[in-house]
Amino acid sequence: MNIIKVAALQTTVYECKQDTHDNLKHLFEINNVKNADLVTLPEMFNCPYDTQRFRAYAEPPQGETWRICSQLAAENGVYLSAGSIPEEDETGQIFNTAYVFDRKGREIAKHRKVHLFDINITGGQYFKESDTLTAGDKITIFDTEFGKMGLCICYDFRFPEMARLMALQGAKVLLAPGAFNMTTGPAHWELLFKSRALDNQVYCIGTAPARDVSGPYVSWGHSIITGPWGDIIAGAGENECILTAGLDLDIIKKVRQELPLLAHRRKDIYNVEVYNDN
Amino acid sequence: MNIIKVAALQTTVYECKQDTHDNLKHLFEINNVKNADLVTLPEMFNCPYDTQRFRAYAEPPQGETWRICSQLAAENGVYLSAGSIPEEDETGQIFNTAYVFDRKGREIAKHRKVHLFDINITGGQYFKESDTLTAGDKITIFDTEFGKMGLCICYDFRFPEMARLMALQGAKVLLAPGAFNMTTGPAHWELLFKSRALDNQVYCIGTAPARDVSGPYVSWGHSIITGPWGDIIAGAGENECILTAGLDLDIIKKVRQELPLLAHRRKDIYNVEVYNDN
Repeated sequence: MNIIKVAALQTTVYECKQDTHDNLKHLFEINNVKNADLVTLPEMFNCPYDTQRFRAYAEPPQGETWRICSQLAAENGVYLSAGSIPEEDETGQIFNTAYVFDRKGREIAKHRKVHLFDINITGGQYFKESDTLTAGDKITIFDTEFGKMGLCICYDFRFPEMARLMALQGAKVLLAPGAFNMTTGPAHWELLFKSRALDNQVYCIGTAPARDVSGPYVSWGHSIITGPWGDIIAGAGENECILTAGLDLDIIKKVRQELPLLAHRRKDIYNVEVYNDN
Repeated sequence: MNIIKVAALQTTVYECKQDTHDNLKHLFEINNVKNADLVTLPEMFNCPYDTQRFRAYAEPPQGETWRICSQLAAENGVYLSAGSIPEEDETGQIFNTAYVFDRKGREIAKHRKVHLFDINITGGQYFKESDTLTAGDKITIFDTEFGKMGLCICYDFRFPEMARLMALQGAKVLLAPGAFNMTTGPAHWELLFKSRALDNQVYCIGTAPARDVSGPYVSWGHSIITGPWGDIIAGAGENECILTAGLDLDIIKKVRQELPLLAHRRKDIYNVEVYNDN
Protein backbone atom coordinates (compact mmCIF):
# COMPACT_ATOMS: atom_id res chain seq x y z
CA MET A 1 0.00 0.00 0.00
CA ASN A 2 1.22 3.42 -0.92
CA ILE A 3 -0.75 5.62 1.44
CA ILE A 4 0.03 9.09 2.76
CA LYS A 5 -1.51 9.80 6.16
CA VAL A 6 -2.50 13.47 6.08
CA ALA A 7 -3.56 15.78 8.89
CA ALA A 8 -4.74 19.18 7.69
CA LEU A 9 -4.90 21.62 10.62
CA GLN A 10 -7.68 24.17 10.27
CA THR A 11 -6.24 26.43 12.94
CA THR A 12 -7.39 29.59 14.63
CA VAL A 13 -5.35 32.67 13.71
CA TYR A 14 -4.51 34.67 16.84
CA GLU A 15 -3.74 38.36 17.14
CA CYS A 16 -0.79 37.38 19.30
CA LYS A 17 1.81 35.36 17.41
CA GLN A 18 2.87 33.58 20.61
CA ASP A 19 -0.66 32.17 20.91
CA THR A 20 -0.41 30.79 17.35
CA HIS A 21 2.90 29.11 18.18
CA ASP A 22 1.56 27.66 21.44
CA ASN A 23 -1.54 26.36 19.71
CA LEU A 24 0.57 24.71 17.03
CA LYS A 25 2.76 22.95 19.60
CA HIS A 26 -0.37 21.82 21.41
CA LEU A 27 -1.86 20.37 18.23
CA PHE A 28 1.31 18.36 17.69
CA GLU A 29 0.63 16.56 20.98
CA ILE A 30 -2.40 14.93 19.39
CA ASN A 31 -1.84 11.45 17.96
CA ASN A 32 -3.54 12.10 14.61
CA VAL A 33 -1.12 14.93 14.03
CA LYS A 34 2.18 13.65 15.32
CA ASN A 35 1.65 10.26 13.68
CA ALA A 36 0.76 11.69 10.28
CA ASP A 37 3.09 11.53 7.30
CA LEU A 38 2.13 15.00 6.13
CA VAL A 39 0.74 17.83 8.27
CA THR A 40 -0.59 20.95 6.57
CA LEU A 41 -1.35 24.46 7.86
CA PRO A 42 -3.48 27.32 6.48
CA GLU A 43 -2.56 30.40 4.48
CA MET A 44 -1.29 33.24 6.73
CA PHE A 45 -1.67 31.04 9.79
CA ASN A 46 0.39 33.33 12.01
CA CYS A 47 -1.06 36.69 10.94
CA PRO A 48 -4.57 38.17 10.73
CA TYR A 49 -5.41 38.28 7.02
CA ASP A 50 -5.27 42.04 6.60
CA THR A 51 -2.98 43.94 4.24
CA GLN A 52 -2.34 46.49 7.03
CA ARG A 53 -0.82 43.81 9.28
CA PHE A 54 1.39 41.88 6.89
CA ARG A 55 4.46 44.07 7.47
CA ALA A 56 4.17 44.01 11.26
CA TYR A 57 3.85 40.21 11.34
CA ALA A 58 6.44 39.55 8.64
CA GLU A 59 9.54 37.51 9.41
CA PRO A 60 12.84 37.19 7.55
CA PRO A 61 13.77 33.85 5.97
CA GLN A 62 14.46 31.35 8.79
CA GLY A 63 12.66 33.60 11.27
CA GLU A 64 10.89 32.54 14.45
CA THR A 65 7.82 30.84 12.94
CA TRP A 66 10.03 29.11 10.38
CA ARG A 67 12.26 27.72 13.15
CA ILE A 68 9.33 26.47 15.21
CA CYS A 69 7.88 24.70 12.19
CA SER A 70 11.21 23.17 11.24
CA GLN A 71 11.57 21.90 14.79
CA LEU A 72 8.04 20.47 14.95
CA ALA A 73 8.64 18.61 11.68
CA ALA A 74 11.93 17.17 12.95
CA GLU A 75 10.71 16.29 16.45
CA ASN A 76 7.68 14.47 15.08
CA GLY A 77 9.31 13.07 11.96
CA VAL A 78 6.60 14.44 9.65
CA TYR A 79 6.50 16.38 6.44
CA LEU A 80 5.10 19.78 7.37
CA SER A 81 3.51 22.10 4.83
CA ALA A 82 3.73 25.16 7.04
CA GLY A 83 0.87 27.01 5.39
CA SER A 84 2.04 30.51 4.54
CA ILE A 85 3.30 33.51 6.50
CA PRO A 86 4.30 37.06 5.56
CA GLU A 87 7.99 36.98 4.65
CA GLU A 88 10.20 40.10 4.48
CA ASP A 89 13.24 39.88 2.27
CA GLU A 90 16.46 41.84 2.68
CA THR A 91 15.14 44.70 0.54
CA GLY A 92 12.01 45.15 2.65
CA GLN A 93 9.59 43.55 0.21
CA ILE A 94 6.82 41.46 1.77
CA PHE A 95 5.71 38.15 0.24
CA ASN A 96 2.99 35.66 1.06
CA THR A 97 5.30 32.67 1.43
CA ALA A 98 4.69 28.96 1.96
CA TYR A 99 7.34 26.57 3.29
CA VAL A 100 7.55 22.79 3.37
CA PHE A 101 9.84 20.89 5.76
CA ASP A 102 10.83 17.25 5.53
CA ARG A 103 10.89 14.67 8.32
CA LYS A 104 14.25 16.01 9.50
CA GLY A 105 13.02 19.61 9.57
CA ARG A 106 14.90 20.67 6.45
CA GLU A 107 13.22 23.23 4.18
CA ILE A 108 12.49 21.37 0.95
CA ALA A 109 10.15 23.87 -0.70
CA LYS A 110 9.44 27.58 -0.59
CA HIS A 111 6.68 29.18 -2.64
CA ARG A 112 5.92 32.87 -2.86
CA LYS A 113 2.31 33.50 -3.91
CA VAL A 114 2.39 34.20 -7.63
CA HIS A 115 -1.10 35.63 -8.16
CA LEU A 116 -1.99 38.39 -5.72
CA PHE A 117 -5.61 38.55 -4.64
CA ASP A 118 -7.18 41.81 -5.79
CA ILE A 119 -10.95 41.62 -5.80
CA ASN A 120 -13.88 44.00 -5.59
CA ILE A 121 -17.31 42.37 -5.59
CA THR A 122 -20.42 44.59 -5.53
CA GLY A 123 -22.04 44.10 -2.14
CA GLY A 124 -19.39 41.50 -1.29
CA GLN A 125 -15.68 41.28 -0.66
CA TYR A 126 -13.07 44.00 -1.31
CA PHE A 127 -9.43 43.05 -0.82
CA LYS A 128 -6.19 44.13 -2.45
CA GLU A 129 -3.11 42.11 -1.53
CA SER A 130 -0.99 44.03 -3.98
CA ASP A 131 -1.31 47.11 -1.73
CA THR A 132 1.44 45.64 0.45
CA LEU A 133 2.62 42.36 -1.04
CA THR A 134 5.03 41.55 -3.84
CA ALA A 135 4.29 38.56 -6.06
CA GLY A 136 6.53 35.53 -6.50
CA ASP A 137 7.46 34.31 -9.94
CA LYS A 138 7.92 30.54 -9.84
CA ILE A 139 5.95 27.31 -10.05
CA THR A 140 6.93 25.17 -7.04
CA ILE A 141 7.41 21.39 -7.11
CA PHE A 142 9.31 19.32 -4.56
CA ASP A 143 10.34 15.73 -3.94
CA THR A 144 9.21 13.53 -1.06
CA GLU A 145 9.48 9.84 -0.27
CA PHE A 146 5.96 9.60 -1.77
CA GLY A 147 6.98 11.22 -5.03
CA LYS A 148 6.61 14.78 -6.26
CA MET A 149 4.17 17.30 -4.82
CA GLY A 150 3.18 20.81 -5.90
CA LEU A 151 2.75 23.88 -3.73
CA CYS A 152 0.77 27.03 -4.38
CA ILE A 153 -1.27 29.48 -2.30
CA CYS A 154 -5.00 30.22 -2.42
CA TYR A 155 -5.63 32.58 -5.38
CA ASP A 156 -2.87 30.76 -7.33
CA PHE A 157 -5.24 27.80 -7.38
CA ARG A 158 -7.76 29.79 -9.44
CA PHE A 159 -5.51 29.50 -12.47
CA PRO A 160 -5.79 26.12 -14.17
CA GLU A 161 -2.41 26.57 -15.83
CA MET A 162 -0.58 26.33 -12.48
CA ALA A 163 -2.20 23.11 -11.35
CA ARG A 164 -1.69 21.67 -14.84
CA LEU A 165 1.98 22.55 -14.87
CA MET A 166 2.50 21.02 -11.43
CA ALA A 167 0.78 17.81 -12.54
CA LEU A 168 2.69 17.68 -15.83
CA GLN A 169 5.93 18.07 -13.87
CA GLY A 170 4.96 14.96 -11.92
CA ALA A 171 3.21 16.24 -8.79
CA LYS A 172 0.67 13.70 -7.49
CA VAL A 173 -0.46 15.86 -4.56
CA LEU A 174 -1.16 19.60 -4.82
CA LEU A 175 -0.98 21.61 -1.61
CA ALA A 176 -2.93 24.86 -1.55
CA PRO A 177 -3.16 26.62 1.80
CA GLY A 178 -5.94 29.14 1.25
CA ALA A 179 -8.33 31.54 2.92
CA PHE A 180 -11.40 32.00 0.78
CA ASN A 181 -13.98 34.41 2.16
CA MET A 182 -17.72 34.35 2.81
CA THR A 183 -18.45 35.40 -0.81
CA THR A 184 -16.03 33.26 -2.81
CA GLY A 185 -15.94 30.37 -0.33
CA PRO A 186 -19.49 29.04 -0.71
CA ALA A 187 -19.46 29.82 -4.44
CA HIS A 188 -16.09 28.42 -5.52
CA TRP A 189 -13.88 26.69 -2.92
CA GLU A 190 -15.19 23.13 -3.23
CA LEU A 191 -15.70 23.44 -7.00
CA LEU A 192 -12.07 24.46 -7.52
CA PHE A 193 -10.61 21.67 -5.41
CA LYS A 194 -12.80 19.05 -7.08
CA SER A 195 -12.10 20.25 -10.60
CA ARG A 196 -8.32 20.66 -10.26
CA ALA A 197 -8.15 17.14 -8.79
CA LEU A 198 -10.33 15.73 -11.57
CA ASP A 199 -8.67 17.51 -14.49
CA ASN A 200 -5.18 16.56 -13.35
CA GLN A 201 -6.01 13.25 -11.67
CA VAL A 202 -4.19 14.16 -8.47
CA TYR A 203 -4.96 14.69 -4.80
CA CYS A 204 -5.51 18.30 -3.71
CA ILE A 205 -5.32 19.55 -0.13
CA GLY A 206 -6.84 22.93 0.70
CA THR A 207 -6.05 24.03 4.25
CA ALA A 208 -7.94 27.08 5.51
CA PRO A 209 -7.91 29.06 8.75
CA ALA A 210 -10.83 28.45 11.12
CA ARG A 211 -13.59 31.04 10.80
CA ASP A 212 -13.36 34.04 13.11
CA VAL A 213 -16.32 36.36 12.56
CA SER A 214 -14.66 39.07 14.66
CA GLY A 215 -11.55 39.16 12.45
CA PRO A 216 -10.80 41.68 9.69
CA TYR A 217 -11.35 39.05 6.98
CA VAL A 218 -13.74 36.19 7.63
CA SER A 219 -12.37 32.86 6.40
CA TRP A 220 -14.77 30.39 4.85
CA GLY A 221 -12.90 27.52 6.53
CA HIS A 222 -14.03 24.21 5.02
CA SER A 223 -10.55 22.72 4.58
CA ILE A 224 -10.84 20.01 1.97
CA ILE A 225 -9.06 17.02 0.48
CA THR A 226 -10.12 15.93 -3.00
CA GLY A 227 -9.12 12.90 -5.05
CA PRO A 228 -8.25 12.05 -8.66
CA TRP A 229 -11.84 11.12 -9.54
CA GLY A 230 -12.97 14.64 -8.59
CA ASP A 231 -14.42 13.36 -5.32
CA ILE A 232 -14.19 14.81 -1.82
CA ILE A 233 -12.02 12.57 0.39
CA ALA A 234 -12.52 14.68 3.50
CA GLY A 235 -14.05 18.05 4.33
CA ALA A 236 -14.15 20.28 7.39
CA GLY A 237 -16.71 22.74 8.69
CA GLU A 238 -15.87 26.26 9.85
CA ASN A 239 -14.33 25.68 13.30
CA GLU A 240 -10.81 24.75 14.32
CA CYS A 241 -10.33 21.07 13.55
CA ILE A 242 -7.96 18.35 12.40
CA LEU A 243 -8.95 16.93 9.04
CA THR A 244 -7.40 13.53 8.43
CA ALA A 245 -7.29 11.20 5.44
CA GLY A 246 -5.20 8.46 3.91
CA LEU A 247 -4.26 9.28 0.32
CA ASP A 248 -3.82 6.08 -1.67
CA LEU A 249 -1.44 6.82 -4.53
CA ASP A 250 -2.45 3.59 -6.28
CA ILE A 251 -5.86 5.18 -6.95
CA ILE A 252 -4.13 7.78 -9.11
CA LYS A 253 -2.55 5.01 -11.15
CA LYS A 254 -5.92 3.25 -11.53
CA VAL A 255 -7.84 6.39 -12.54
CA ARG A 256 -5.17 7.40 -15.06
CA GLN A 257 -5.29 3.94 -16.58
CA GLU A 258 -9.07 3.87 -16.89
CA LEU A 259 -9.52 7.45 -18.08
CA PRO A 260 -6.14 8.52 -19.48
CA LEU A 261 -6.71 12.29 -19.49
CA LEU A 262 -3.07 13.31 -19.25
CA ALA A 263 -2.05 10.86 -21.98
CA HIS A 264 -4.93 12.01 -24.23
CA ARG A 265 -3.83 15.65 -24.23
CA ARG A 266 -3.27 16.80 -27.83
CA LYS A 267 0.21 18.24 -27.45
CA ASP A 268 0.40 18.57 -31.22
CA ILE A 269 -2.36 21.20 -30.97
CA TYR A 270 -1.74 22.96 -27.63
CA ASN A 271 0.39 22.90 -24.54
CA VAL A 272 0.87 24.82 -21.33
CA GLU A 273 4.30 26.38 -21.54
CA VAL A 274 6.29 27.60 -18.55
CA TYR A 275 8.73 30.49 -18.98
CA ASN A 276 10.16 30.90 -15.52
CA ASP A 277 10.88 27.47 -14.16
CA ASN A 278 12.70 26.41 -11.01
CA MET B 1 -29.76 44.42 -22.61
CA ASN B 2 -27.44 42.04 -24.29
CA ILE B 3 -29.24 38.74 -23.83
CA ILE B 4 -29.04 35.54 -25.87
CA LYS B 5 -32.21 33.45 -25.76
CA VAL B 6 -31.06 29.84 -25.79
CA ALA B 7 -33.04 26.64 -26.33
CA ALA B 8 -31.00 23.48 -25.76
CA LEU B 9 -32.83 20.47 -27.18
CA GLN B 10 -32.23 17.27 -25.23
CA THR B 11 -33.55 15.07 -27.99
CA THR B 12 -34.21 11.37 -28.34
CA VAL B 13 -31.85 9.58 -30.69
CA TYR B 14 -33.79 7.26 -33.00
CA GLU B 15 -32.60 4.13 -34.76
CA CYS B 16 -34.28 5.48 -37.88
CA LYS B 17 -32.71 8.72 -39.10
CA GLN B 18 -36.00 9.84 -40.63
CA ASP B 19 -37.54 9.78 -37.13
CA THR B 20 -34.75 12.04 -35.86
CA HIS B 21 -35.38 14.50 -38.69
CA ASP B 22 -39.15 14.47 -38.14
CA ASN B 23 -38.71 15.00 -34.40
CA LEU B 24 -36.40 17.92 -35.05
CA LYS B 25 -38.87 19.60 -37.40
CA HIS B 26 -41.60 19.04 -34.86
CA LEU B 27 -39.55 20.66 -32.07
CA PHE B 28 -39.09 23.72 -34.26
CA GLU B 29 -42.85 24.23 -34.22
CA ILE B 30 -42.64 25.06 -30.51
CA ASN B 31 -42.45 28.76 -29.64
CA ASN B 32 -39.52 28.44 -27.20
CA VAL B 33 -37.47 26.91 -29.96
CA LYS B 34 -38.40 28.89 -33.03
CA ASN B 35 -38.21 32.18 -31.14
CA ALA B 36 -34.80 31.48 -29.62
CA ASP B 37 -31.64 33.23 -30.75
CA LEU B 38 -29.56 30.08 -30.41
CA VAL B 39 -30.82 26.49 -30.59
CA THR B 40 -28.46 23.66 -29.65
CA LEU B 41 -28.55 19.91 -30.29
CA PRO B 42 -26.75 16.95 -28.68
CA GLU B 43 -23.64 15.03 -29.68
CA MET B 44 -24.40 12.35 -32.29
CA PHE B 45 -28.04 13.36 -32.35
CA ASN B 46 -28.80 11.46 -35.56
CA CYS B 47 -26.97 8.22 -34.76
CA PRO B 48 -27.01 5.69 -31.91
CA TYR B 49 -23.79 6.27 -29.97
CA ASP B 50 -22.04 3.07 -30.96
CA THR B 51 -18.74 2.80 -32.80
CA GLN B 52 -20.23 0.00 -34.96
CA ARG B 53 -22.88 2.34 -36.37
CA PHE B 54 -20.92 5.50 -37.08
CA ARG B 55 -20.00 4.47 -40.63
CA ALA B 56 -23.53 3.41 -41.57
CA TYR B 57 -25.03 6.68 -40.30
CA ALA B 58 -22.22 8.90 -41.60
CA GLU B 59 -22.98 11.63 -44.13
CA PRO B 60 -20.68 13.57 -46.46
CA PRO B 61 -20.23 17.32 -45.95
CA GLN B 62 -23.54 19.06 -46.80
CA GLY B 63 -25.38 15.75 -46.54
CA GLU B 64 -29.02 15.23 -45.68
CA THR B 65 -28.93 16.07 -41.95
CA TRP B 66 -26.73 19.09 -42.68
CA ARG B 67 -29.25 20.39 -45.23
CA ILE B 68 -32.21 19.93 -42.90
CA CYS B 69 -30.40 21.80 -40.13
CA SER B 70 -29.34 24.60 -42.46
CA GLN B 71 -32.94 24.92 -43.60
CA LEU B 72 -34.36 24.93 -40.05
CA ALA B 73 -31.92 27.68 -39.07
CA ALA B 74 -32.86 29.79 -42.09
CA GLU B 75 -36.64 29.22 -41.87
CA ASN B 76 -36.70 30.15 -38.19
CA GLY B 77 -34.00 32.82 -38.31
CA VAL B 78 -32.00 31.24 -35.46
CA TYR B 79 -28.40 30.30 -34.86
CA LEU B 80 -28.36 26.51 -34.77
CA SER B 81 -25.57 24.53 -33.14
CA ALA B 82 -26.47 21.29 -34.85
CA GLY B 83 -24.94 19.04 -32.21
CA SER B 84 -22.67 16.55 -33.91
CA ILE B 85 -23.11 13.80 -36.48
CA PRO B 86 -20.80 11.21 -38.04
CA GLU B 87 -19.18 12.81 -41.09
CA GLU B 88 -17.46 10.83 -43.84
CA ASP B 89 -14.85 12.68 -45.86
CA GLU B 90 -13.84 11.95 -49.46
CA THR B 91 -11.15 9.47 -48.30
CA GLY B 92 -13.61 7.41 -46.25
CA GLN B 93 -12.46 8.64 -42.84
CA ILE B 94 -15.23 9.14 -40.26
CA PHE B 95 -15.26 12.13 -37.90
CA ASN B 96 -17.48 13.18 -35.01
CA THR B 97 -18.38 16.57 -36.45
CA ALA B 98 -20.29 19.57 -35.09
CA TYR B 99 -21.76 22.28 -37.28
CA VAL B 100 -23.13 25.73 -36.53
CA PHE B 101 -25.48 27.61 -38.87
CA ASP B 102 -26.33 31.29 -38.73
CA ARG B 103 -29.77 32.89 -39.01
CA LYS B 104 -29.62 32.55 -42.79
CA GLY B 105 -28.70 28.87 -42.66
CA ARG B 106 -25.07 29.42 -43.63
CA GLU B 107 -22.47 27.12 -42.05
CA ILE B 108 -20.34 29.38 -39.86
CA ALA B 109 -18.48 26.74 -37.86
CA LYS B 110 -17.43 23.14 -38.23
CA HIS B 111 -15.59 21.26 -35.50
CA ARG B 112 -14.25 17.74 -35.70
CA LYS B 113 -13.84 16.18 -32.24
CA VAL B 114 -10.20 16.57 -31.32
CA HIS B 115 -9.99 14.21 -28.35
CA LEU B 116 -11.43 10.76 -29.05
CA PHE B 117 -13.15 9.04 -26.14
CA ASP B 118 -11.29 5.88 -25.22
CA ILE B 119 -12.17 4.74 -21.75
CA ASN B 120 -12.15 1.49 -19.77
CA ILE B 121 -13.45 1.77 -16.22
CA THR B 122 -13.39 -1.35 -14.00
CA GLY B 123 -17.03 -2.36 -13.49
CA GLY B 124 -18.11 0.70 -15.45
CA GLN B 125 -17.97 2.00 -18.98
CA TYR B 126 -15.86 0.65 -21.86
CA PHE B 127 -15.85 2.68 -25.06
CA LYS B 128 -13.29 3.25 -27.78
CA GLU B 129 -14.17 5.91 -30.35
CA SER B 130 -10.79 5.59 -31.99
CA ASP B 131 -11.82 2.13 -33.25
CA THR B 132 -13.74 3.83 -36.05
CA LEU B 133 -13.29 7.59 -35.78
CA THR B 134 -10.50 9.90 -36.88
CA ALA B 135 -9.68 12.92 -34.70
CA GLY B 136 -9.88 16.54 -35.77
CA ASP B 137 -6.96 18.86 -35.22
CA LYS B 138 -8.29 22.38 -34.67
CA ILE B 139 -9.67 24.64 -31.96
CA THR B 140 -12.95 26.11 -33.23
CA ILE B 141 -14.10 29.70 -32.68
CA PHE B 142 -16.75 31.55 -34.66
CA ASP B 143 -18.36 34.98 -34.86
CA THR B 144 -21.99 35.80 -34.17
CA GLU B 145 -23.96 38.99 -33.70
CA PHE B 146 -23.45 38.36 -29.94
CA GLY B 147 -19.68 38.11 -30.26
CA LYS B 148 -17.41 35.12 -30.48
CA MET B 149 -18.34 31.62 -29.38
CA GLY B 150 -16.33 28.42 -29.07
CA LEU B 151 -17.32 24.93 -30.17
CA CYS B 152 -16.04 21.57 -28.99
CA ILE B 153 -17.52 18.11 -28.44
CA CYS B 154 -17.97 16.17 -25.21
CA TYR B 155 -14.58 14.60 -24.31
CA ASP B 156 -12.85 17.72 -25.71
CA PHE B 157 -14.36 19.56 -22.77
CA ARG B 158 -12.33 17.41 -20.34
CA PHE B 159 -9.19 19.28 -21.35
CA PRO B 160 -8.89 22.66 -19.65
CA GLU B 161 -6.49 23.89 -22.31
CA MET B 162 -9.22 23.86 -24.97
CA ALA B 163 -11.75 25.89 -23.01
CA ARG B 164 -8.96 28.27 -21.96
CA LEU B 165 -7.83 28.78 -25.55
CA MET B 166 -11.38 29.44 -26.72
CA ALA B 167 -11.88 32.01 -23.95
CA LEU B 168 -8.52 33.68 -24.60
CA GLN B 169 -9.46 33.95 -28.27
CA GLY B 170 -12.54 35.87 -27.20
CA ALA B 171 -15.32 33.29 -26.95
CA LYS B 172 -17.96 34.33 -24.40
CA VAL B 173 -20.09 31.22 -24.87
CA LEU B 174 -18.70 27.68 -25.13
CA LEU B 175 -20.86 25.08 -26.85
CA ALA B 176 -20.20 21.47 -25.95
CA PRO B 177 -22.67 18.92 -27.27
CA GLY B 178 -21.89 15.83 -25.24
CA ALA B 179 -23.08 12.39 -24.22
CA PHE B 180 -21.63 11.45 -20.86
CA ASN B 181 -22.60 8.01 -19.59
CA MET B 182 -24.02 6.57 -16.39
CA THR B 183 -20.52 6.33 -14.84
CA THR B 184 -18.92 9.64 -15.84
CA GLY B 185 -22.19 11.59 -15.94
CA PRO B 186 -23.07 11.64 -12.25
CA ALA B 187 -19.40 11.95 -11.29
CA HIS B 188 -18.18 14.68 -13.63
CA TRP B 189 -20.68 16.31 -16.00
CA GLU B 190 -21.93 19.14 -13.79
CA LEU B 191 -18.50 19.68 -12.21
CA LEU B 192 -16.89 20.18 -15.61
CA PHE B 193 -19.48 22.64 -16.88
CA LYS B 194 -19.35 24.67 -13.67
CA SER B 195 -15.57 24.76 -13.49
CA ARG B 196 -14.94 25.62 -17.15
CA ALA B 197 -17.46 28.47 -16.85
CA LEU B 198 -15.90 29.71 -13.60
CA ASP B 199 -12.25 29.47 -14.65
CA ASN B 200 -12.87 31.23 -17.94
CA GLN B 201 -15.76 33.48 -16.86
CA VAL B 202 -17.95 32.46 -19.77
CA TYR B 203 -21.26 30.73 -20.38
CA CYS B 204 -21.11 27.02 -21.18
CA ILE B 205 -23.87 25.01 -22.82
CA GLY B 206 -23.78 21.23 -22.61
CA THR B 207 -26.43 19.58 -24.75
CA ALA B 208 -26.91 15.84 -24.24
CA PRO B 209 -29.16 13.23 -25.82
CA ALA B 210 -32.16 12.11 -23.76
CA ARG B 211 -31.57 8.90 -21.83
CA ASP B 212 -32.55 5.68 -23.57
CA VAL B 213 -31.87 2.70 -21.33
CA SER B 214 -32.46 0.30 -24.22
CA GLY B 215 -29.75 1.88 -26.38
CA PRO B 216 -26.17 0.63 -26.83
CA TYR B 217 -24.76 3.51 -24.76
CA VAL B 218 -26.88 5.06 -22.04
CA SER B 219 -26.65 8.86 -22.01
CA TRP B 220 -26.63 10.63 -18.66
CA GLY B 221 -28.78 13.41 -20.15
CA HIS B 222 -28.82 16.39 -17.77
CA SER B 223 -28.18 19.07 -20.40
CA ILE B 224 -26.83 22.10 -18.59
CA ILE B 225 -26.16 25.81 -18.95
CA THR B 226 -23.59 27.34 -16.59
CA GLY B 227 -22.57 30.95 -16.04
CA PRO B 228 -19.40 33.00 -15.45
CA TRP B 229 -19.71 32.77 -11.65
CA GLY B 230 -19.58 28.97 -11.87
CA ASP B 231 -23.31 28.73 -11.26
CA ILE B 232 -25.93 26.58 -12.96
CA ILE B 233 -28.26 28.76 -15.05
CA ALA B 234 -30.47 25.89 -16.16
CA GLY B 235 -30.37 22.12 -15.92
CA ALA B 236 -32.40 19.26 -17.40
CA GLY B 237 -33.26 15.80 -16.14
CA GLU B 238 -32.89 12.65 -18.16
CA ASN B 239 -35.88 12.80 -20.52
CA GLU B 240 -36.40 14.60 -23.81
CA CYS B 241 -36.88 18.27 -23.05
CA ILE B 242 -36.28 21.84 -24.11
CA LEU B 243 -33.93 23.65 -21.76
CA THR B 244 -34.24 27.42 -22.07
CA ALA B 245 -32.33 30.34 -20.61
CA GLY B 246 -31.45 33.96 -21.30
CA LEU B 247 -27.69 34.49 -21.24
CA ASP B 248 -26.92 38.04 -20.15
CA LEU B 249 -23.54 38.98 -21.59
CA ASP B 250 -23.30 41.98 -19.26
CA ILE B 251 -22.86 39.53 -16.38
CA ILE B 252 -19.61 38.38 -17.94
CA LYS B 253 -18.41 41.96 -18.00
CA LYS B 254 -19.40 42.45 -14.35
CA VAL B 255 -17.79 39.23 -13.11
CA ARG B 256 -14.57 39.92 -15.00
CA GLN B 257 -14.43 43.39 -13.50
CA GLU B 258 -14.99 42.19 -9.93
CA LEU B 259 -12.73 39.14 -10.09
CA PRO B 260 -10.34 39.73 -13.01
CA LEU B 261 -9.12 36.16 -13.46
CA LEU B 262 -8.20 36.47 -17.12
CA ALA B 263 -6.35 39.75 -16.53
CA HIS B 264 -4.52 38.30 -13.51
CA ARG B 265 -3.00 35.40 -15.45
CA ARG B 266 0.81 35.54 -15.12
CA LYS B 267 1.73 35.37 -18.77
CA ASP B 268 5.33 36.12 -17.85
CA ILE B 269 5.41 32.73 -16.11
CA TYR B 270 3.14 30.49 -18.22
CA ASN B 271 0.75 30.48 -21.12
CA VAL B 272 -1.40 28.08 -23.09
CA GLU B 273 0.08 27.96 -26.55
CA VAL B 274 -1.77 26.77 -29.63
CA TYR B 275 0.17 25.14 -32.46
CA ASN B 276 -2.51 24.37 -34.97
CA ASP B 277 -4.83 27.33 -35.16
CA ASN B 278 -7.64 28.03 -37.59
